[in-house]
Amino acid sequence: MIYLDNSATTHPFSGVLDTFRQTSERYFANPSSIHPLGGEAERLLEASRERVSSILGGQEGRVIFTSGGTESNNLAIKGTAFMHMSRGKHLITTRVEHPSVLETFESLESFGFEITYVDVDEYGHVAPADVHASIREDTILVSIMSVNNEIGSIQPLKEIGDILRSYPKIYFHVDHVQGQGKIDLSLQEAGVDLCSVSGHKIHGLKGTGVLYKKDNVRLFPLNHGGGQEQGIRAGTENLPGIVAFTKALRMIDEEKLRKKSELMELHDHLYDSLEELNGVVVNSPKHGAFHIINFSMPGYKPEAIIHALAKREVYISTKSACSSKEPDRSAVLEACRAKEEIATSALRISLSYETTKEELDTFLEILKEVRDSLVQISEV
Amino acid sequence: MIYLDNSATTHPFSGVLDTFRQTSERYFANPSSIHPLGGEAERLLEASRERVSSILGGQEGRVIFTSGGTESNNLAIKGTAFMHMSRGKHLITTRVEHPSVLETFESLESFGFEITYVDVDEYGHVAPADVHASIREDTILVSIMSVNNEIGSIQPLKEIGDILRSYPKIYFHVDHVQGQGKIDLSLQEAGVDLCSVSGHKIHGLKGTGVLYKKDNVRLFPLNHGGGQEQGIRAGTENLPGIVAFTKALRMIDEEKLRKKSELMELHDHLYDSLEELNGVVVNSPKHGAFHIINFSMPGYKPEAIIHALAKREVYISTKSACSSKEPDRSAVLEACRAKEEIATSALRISLSYETTKEELDTFLEILKEVRDSLVQISEV
Repeated sequence: MIYLDNSATTHPFSGVLDTFRQTSERYFANPSSIHPLGGEAERLLEASRERVSSILGGQEGRVIFTSGGTESNNLAIKGTAFMHMSRGKHLITTRVEHPSVLETFESLESFGFEITYVDVDEYGHVAPADVHASIREDTILVSIMSVNNEIGSIQPLKEIGDILRSYPKIYFHVDHVQGQGKIDLSLQEAGVDLCSVSGHKIHGLKGTGVLYKKDNVRLFPLNHGGGQEQGIRAGTENLPGIVAFTKALRMIDEEKLRKKSELMELHDHLYDSLEELNGVVVNSPKHGAFHIINFSMPGYKPEAIIHALAKREVYISTKSACSSKEPDRSAVLEACRAKEEIATSALRISLSYETTKEELDTFLEILKEVRDSLVQISEV
Repeated sequence: MIYLDNSATTHPFSGVLDTFRQTSERYFANPSSIHPLGGEAERLLEASRERVSSILGGQEGRVIFTSGGTESNNLAIKGTAFMHMSRGKHLITTRVEHPSVLETFESLESFGFEITYVDVDEYGHVAPADVHASIREDTILVSIMSVNNEIGSIQPLKEIGDILRSYPKIYFHVDHVQGQGKIDLSLQEAGVDLCSVSGHKIHGLKGTGVLYKKDNVRLFPLNHGGGQEQGIRAGTENLPGIVAFTKALRMIDEEKLRKKSELMELHDHLYDSLEELNGVVVNSPKHGAFHIINFSMPGYKPEAIIHALAKREVYISTKSACSSKEPDRSAVLEACRAKEEIATSALRISLSYETTKEELDTFLEILKEVRDSLVQISEV
């Protein structure tokens, strides 16, 4: 099996699964229980929080443990909107965000919020000046992803953060779900107030994630209740999932240190090889994130290619998994002003640190065969 | 170790942990991915949904998988409120709900909702007539728990449901977190539209739960995004957690079938023994849920008792874990009009199907010793 759909989800590290089981058995008590079993669980919870907060590197804040990237994005955006709506109802984002950001913004329109969607260039990049020009008196939040989930563009967060420093009342949220463990992002240097990370994109467990939050940022909770997670995210803490998340974060950081340059070479090799292939148009920027390459094969149905590849046990995706059941047109590529034939035939390859050159070369060979067989079919 | 804090959380069944690991390894793909690995995951997801929906027994609806009881309660209540606020802004609940219900209602006041809190009798029971009398022209939701989490009262849901049948536009939500696997509840007979269940209270995993929803009920999502879970709860599905939840639900139902009458006997034995103990006042109804017994020892600090018991490896709790960090007074017992000295000295014992008579007798012996040693201390 050649699994090249790591931006949809990754297989969990075996060590992460071990940690989950051990924690489930050894620390099953409720961290809110006042007996010593609860106390032990609570100390492990807080140690995990310190560890994760320190790895993410925002010294001015701490993380809230959530059920994943989607919840983190929803909590950051709705939490800010509902908490600060008396101060202003204008929000800024881009046209190429993940559905869990775009749909969340759209949902706020029914509460009277106005959203400005900043345009992007042909490779999905936002211009900091455009963000600046969108700011109004009543703006309370800017939300911009670090790495685009479909084409891998890296946004100029530091430059945007520099602009936002002059507007201390506007919160800056970053959807870092595709960036964590891949690109360097200093939350402090970029002046980030809120940052979402998902567990299952970094070989952690599904149902786990965090929202980093600067200490002075107040949020309206999505989940009210027993006062857990600084009163912002109620519900008995999923301690085994939290400890497993912490382990995955540590492991992906070690992988990054050890294998990043190798994976960048693989990326360039794949990028160049795809560009040389007849019938293939590469949509990703040359210098985007090294784990995502998006390409189109105009005239082919992307599903046909995916299924032909899958028969050979090669797994890639159309667009992002989270919007892959939608009609077959990439909203991201449309925002990049790609031609219709490009936006409706997009495919995404996403690598992990376990991907090898042999796998990519085999994939390229099989892709050529699939292309030729499909051409033959259409010529019949 | 004698663990009698099963209403705070239960240890996960070993079989549930096995299922979690197997699913994590074998079905790690994203159910939204269109390649065959995604398809396999999606089929397993939908099979789990069918299974859980059929066990819960609401033939007119299906479950939404959530991150737990708190999210299910928040989704049911806020989801109804935000979806139907143009039709009415009046909501009904009771004074003895779990904090994830009470705090959620309170949070809606900032959106202009009005809440009626129905009173309860000395054992925490709601009178159906009082619910009836609270209904207004603009009522859109009634939310009442099945089993009280602090004292075990069982609410007359069938009778309330009968009343609500004459008001087809009012949704009926039941927080069944403490009832699942313990008491019988027919969602259909009680006319329940929305029902919350948690995984970690039935020896499943933390971070898992469901909200049963009748098919015709529309909810405003808490988590917007990729359209998962019928568009009501976005985010990559925690498939291993979902399959583990399904397993736990099956297992607790089997336990219930096998051991319910035995546990009822244990309950009666414990209840009677506590009533005979000097210095002990039992707060739970005699015929409440058989796994929760609440009692007070007026004049003693409950923390002191908990810690003295814990030194002998016996674990019980004060009130509910979810409000145990709050000042030491039970809001539930206050609503039952308990005297101050009772409401501030409450302790909760909560059993599981694994609890034995030997454990309870040992607990009773140790409790007596603790009582006597603490009396001696106070007499010094």
